[in-house]
Amino acid sequence: MRVAVDAMGGDKAPYEIIKGSVLAAREMQDDGVILVGDANVIQRELDHYKVVPGNITIHHASQVVKMNDPATCSIREKINSSVTRSAELVAKGEAVAIVSAGHTGATVAASTMYLRTLKGIRRPGIIATFPTRNGTCLIIDVGANIACKSIHLLQYGIMATVFSRHMFGIGNPKVGLLNIGEEDVKGNDLAKEAFILLSGSNLNFIGNVEGREIFDDKADVVICEGFIGNILLKFAEGLSMGLLSTIKAEAKKSFWAKLGLLLCRSAFEPLKAKVDFAEYGGVPLLGVNGICIICHGRSDSKAIQNAIKVALTLAKNNINEHIISEVEKTSVLSANVA
Amino acid sequence: MRVAVDAMGGDKAPYEIIKGSVLAAREMQDDGVILVGDANVIQRELDHYKVVPGNITIHHASQVVKMNDPATCSIREKINSSVTRSAELVAKGEAVAIVSAGHTGATVAASTMYLRTLKGIRRPGIIATFPTRNGTCLIIDVGANIACKSIHLLQYGIMATVFSRHMFGIGNPKVGLLNIGEEDVKGNDLAKEAFILLSGSNLNFIGNVEGREIFDDKADVVICEGFIGNILLKFAEGLSMGLLSTIKAEAKKSFWAKLGLLLCRSAFEPLKAKVDFAEYGGVPLLGVNGICIICHGRSDSKAIQNAIKVALTLAKNNINEHIISEVEKTSVLSANVA
Repeated sequence: MRVAVDAMGGDKAPYEIIKGSVLAAREMQDDGVILVGDANVIQRELDHYKVVPGNITIHHASQVVKMNDPATCSIREKINSSVTRSAELVAKGEAVAIVSAGHTGATVAASTMYLRTLKGIRRPGIIATFPTRNGTCLIIDVGANIACKSIHLLQYGIMATVFSRHMFGIGNPKVGLLNIGEEDVKGNDLAKEAFILLSGSNLNFIGNVEGREIFDDKADVVICEGFIGNILLKFAEGLSMGLLSTIKAEAKKSFWAKLGLLLCRSAFEPLKAKVDFAEYGGVPLLGVNGICIICHGRSDSKAIQNAIKVALTLAKNNINEHIISEVEKTSVLSANVA
Repeated sequence: MRVAVDAMGGDKAPYEIIKGSVLAAREMQDDGVILVGDANVIQRELDHYKVVPGNITIHHASQVVKMNDPATCSIREKINSSVTRSAELVAKGEAVAIVSAGHTGATVAASTMYLRTLKGIRRPGIIATFPTRNGTCLIIDVGANIACKSIHLLQYGIMATVFSRHMFGIGNPKVGLLNIGEEDVKGNDLAKEAFILLSGSNLNFIGNVEGREIFDDKADVVICEGFIGNILLKFAEGLSMGLLSTIKAEAKKSFWAKLGLLLCRSAFEPLKAKVDFAEYGGVPLLGVNGICIICHGRSDSKAIQNAIKVALTLAKNNINEHIISEVEKTSVLSANVA
């Protein structure tokens, strides 16, 4: 199996992207990486390595999607971009997955356009792993779908259930709907409609989940629309990193506090690992006919290396086949909903 | 000036609510507190105090809104409830403010119905103070308005600007729109419409603010719809409290880490104060013709005491007169928007 890596996408491209790809390729047995982007630039980077793994190849793409380009440029003005060409490789069956740290919207657009959605799935959704008190919580969607309908939220619940089962080994994950109150009648129209759909589904739906309950492991999966999920994901990153750095800055003001912080450094390690996005590598876009991993714009080689691993694991676990079969079970329900 | 306190609202009512009211009343010169609720229950609580301040009076209300009641019950089935009677006292001019730790929706409904909105204001909004790296950020709306339009978001910007100016002394507060990207074209329809309105206003609008930028003091005021603001407020509470308690639990696992945490305890103090809602007392509902402070359901006496102080400060600063005059300046704009 080969993973198409968008070598030109991300704040630290191409250097860190290529480094991460080389690190991942070295660990592989029968798999490989296709670096997609300007062939000259990529070759120049690879020339710095004494030994380039034989399972790394280059696929030329002349254009690059920039962060201030519109999301649709990957499927309109820049169809020769590294991200579009990566998606195309997956569509043609030359790769099983695309990994990109570039423009999220452009990656979603190219993947949706070239890979198409899975049979029965209306809209793809990005699933992210949030740290919680005793483990993690999956949140879907964190930014693929801005105009969300209740049927999309139901399907996010189905996809996340499959993901949780096959990637985390949770047999019957608890699914919650992000809302502003615990009671059934709470929320805006979208939340109320989704509540009804989810209640009638065969998911392990536990009802509404409030913002403060995410960290408390109330649910294994939390469903929300992409606009909210994206804000929440970035807010969590800013807040947790901010809190930790504030504690550090405060401790520096006194000798004893500084010493104390040094001594209790071990208490911060599990937390740091949890809130460090590089550990997770990237967030999968579920619902497209192929594997797509969206990486943080600030991804370094470690994040890319992990993202490539996640991509291969998803492909080898046949995650999409499992999603299709689970969606088919609820197709009667889905068919009746606008 | 007198503050009507809903003595029956909140998880710790009536004991902590009445204790907080007594503490606040003791510090007052010419002001006073009206405890609204079951007169017998309140009197029995007051009998435990050796000296009850003379500026505390009781106003009987026979009903109580429960947490699982619908929000509208305060203006329909339970118009004799403590929260409804409190709002009525403000409407009649017998009190300047209502303070309640009860059902938020019911408090918003009763205040909006009995006090009415300020001249020119379409929808009231709840404004909350979020801790940031170097200070605080005001977020509006955190849950009053579930069906939000762009004109409401513009007016939230105006009200928050006035609030920031008169309560925090920030002359020309930076106003940001919570969105999923920095670029003008990002977001859902509501965000895009609001962006245009805010850009054309006389506010110090700095554009879109992403979730991760809230903690980094990019804006003094962040505007969002109530559904998102409410989720964010509760998420921030859960995450920050959760992170701190996780560090504590981890540190307990080793003697040296435990000692270290003890030594650097001072580094946590400013943070703890920041994330402790009791310090702020409560969040004001802006846009109604009167002062309304909504307290956390878990409010203790300290939170209630602070909320009463905040209520009096807002009243004495004539916050509503300032809002009306600022809204009038933009009335031409508002009149042209559906």
